[in-house]
Amino acid sequence: MNPTITAFELSPDRGRGLARDMRVRWALEEAGQRYDVRLLSFSAMKEPAHRARHPFGQIPTYEDGDLALFESGAIVLHIAESHAGLLPPDPVARARAISWMFAALNTVEPPILDLQTVLFLERDKSWFEERRAMVKDAIRRRLAELSGHLRDADWLDGGFSAGDLLMVSVLLRVRAAGILDEYPNLAAYVARGEARPAYQRAFAAQLAVFTAASGG
Amino acid sequence: MNPTITAFELSPDRGRGLARDMRVRWALEEAGQRYDVRLLSFSAMKEPAHRARHPFGQIPTYEDGDLALFESGAIVLHIAESHAGLLPPDPVARARAISWMFAALNTVEPPILDLQTVLFLERDKSWFEERRAMVKDAIRRRLAELSGHLRDADWLDGGFSAGDLLMVSVLLRVRAAGILDEYPNLAAYVARGEARPAYQRAFAAQLAVFTAASGG
Repeated sequence: MNPTITAFELSPDRGRGLARDMRVRWALEEAGQRYDVRLLSFSAMKEPAHRARHPFGQIPTYEDGDLALFESGAIVLHIAESHAGLLPPDPVARARAISWMFAALNTVEPPILDLQTVLFLERDKSWFEERRAMVKDAIRRRLAELSGHLRDADWLDGGFSAGDLLMVSVLLRVRAAGILDEYPNLAAYVARGEARPAYQRAFAAQLAVFTAASGG
Repeated sequence: MNPTITAFELSPDRGRGLARDMRVRWALEEAGQRYDVRLLSFSAMKEPAHRARHPFGQIPTYEDGDLALFESGAIVLHIAESHAGLLPPDPVARARAISWMFAALNTVEPPILDLQTVLFLERDKSWFEERRAMVKDAIRRRLAELSGHLRDADWLDGGFSAGDLLMVSVLLRVRAAGILDEYPNLAAYVARGEARPAYQRAFAAQLAVFTAASGG
């Protein structure tokens, strides 16, 4: 039996790989683990059957026998702990990689989520332009610090890890706003992530869902 | 040798236990692990010596021999993995507890951080009242879902875990805004966390730093 994940039946990003199932698909591909996908409509995500799997009514979830997980960060960590290739075996290096997983989700992603709030919910507000500029500057502060850490290294801390997987995934969400390209080493870092065969397989799989659902 | 953590020399919350070193102190107290504290001024946090420990120039960090970690979530997870009492031994229950750690930091905390942005950076803006109401409603949506999951249970998923430790810590940040009390079972849940002897020792330790530094 393969594990089963959930994903959007019709992703709001039109298959650009920004929905959070992409992080789990990518981790599963890096780990060489086949998986099944159950697609959910927006209304099905809020129904009790899915709430029992995900208390906040979101995707992705992960089910494998008795195990039922939610939160993409936790699922990626679980996959990384139970397969080779996403966390280094050395305990110190492993703990460092996990620091980067949390940094991606709790330090770098929050202002990026805030920019999405501005773009999707505040576009018609009088304050739209000023708030967007403020949030972009908050993102720039984080990216400048990240860029200063990365310098000319390929990955954040030694070899590619689940920390890089989550950081690249988070940074991809800000590329369309044009901010990523202000930091050439970060843009190259994200491109290195996207060039990985596992990323490409995951991206193709989630895009195929959108293409099929939209009849495109 | 005890591990060493870093904390604010003069906490912006005036010792109310909302700074992120509190999460690590609480975890160390639950684990029965003694620790040393190195206090940092705001300017020292941004200097190269601290940046080498924390790429984003924040607190807390955690040093134990060869190991140097940052991000409170990662530090709490490391403590939980290397001591008894914060993660259940059963693998399925352990992975569930870790899901709740990520839910606290990546699903519940982002809108709460956004409210802090409104309160600290947008109070003089024309949009302050309207934005504050919008962000409070975004927090309420998360808290309603969390309240619906918790019902009348003591903790989120079986016994107290690192997931509860982080969730209680995140919820404490919104209590002053009056939103927590709209969900009586969540208010009682937070109070159960605060009543734990380990929480109280950690709270007293971080308050003592502020009291000493402010001459109070």
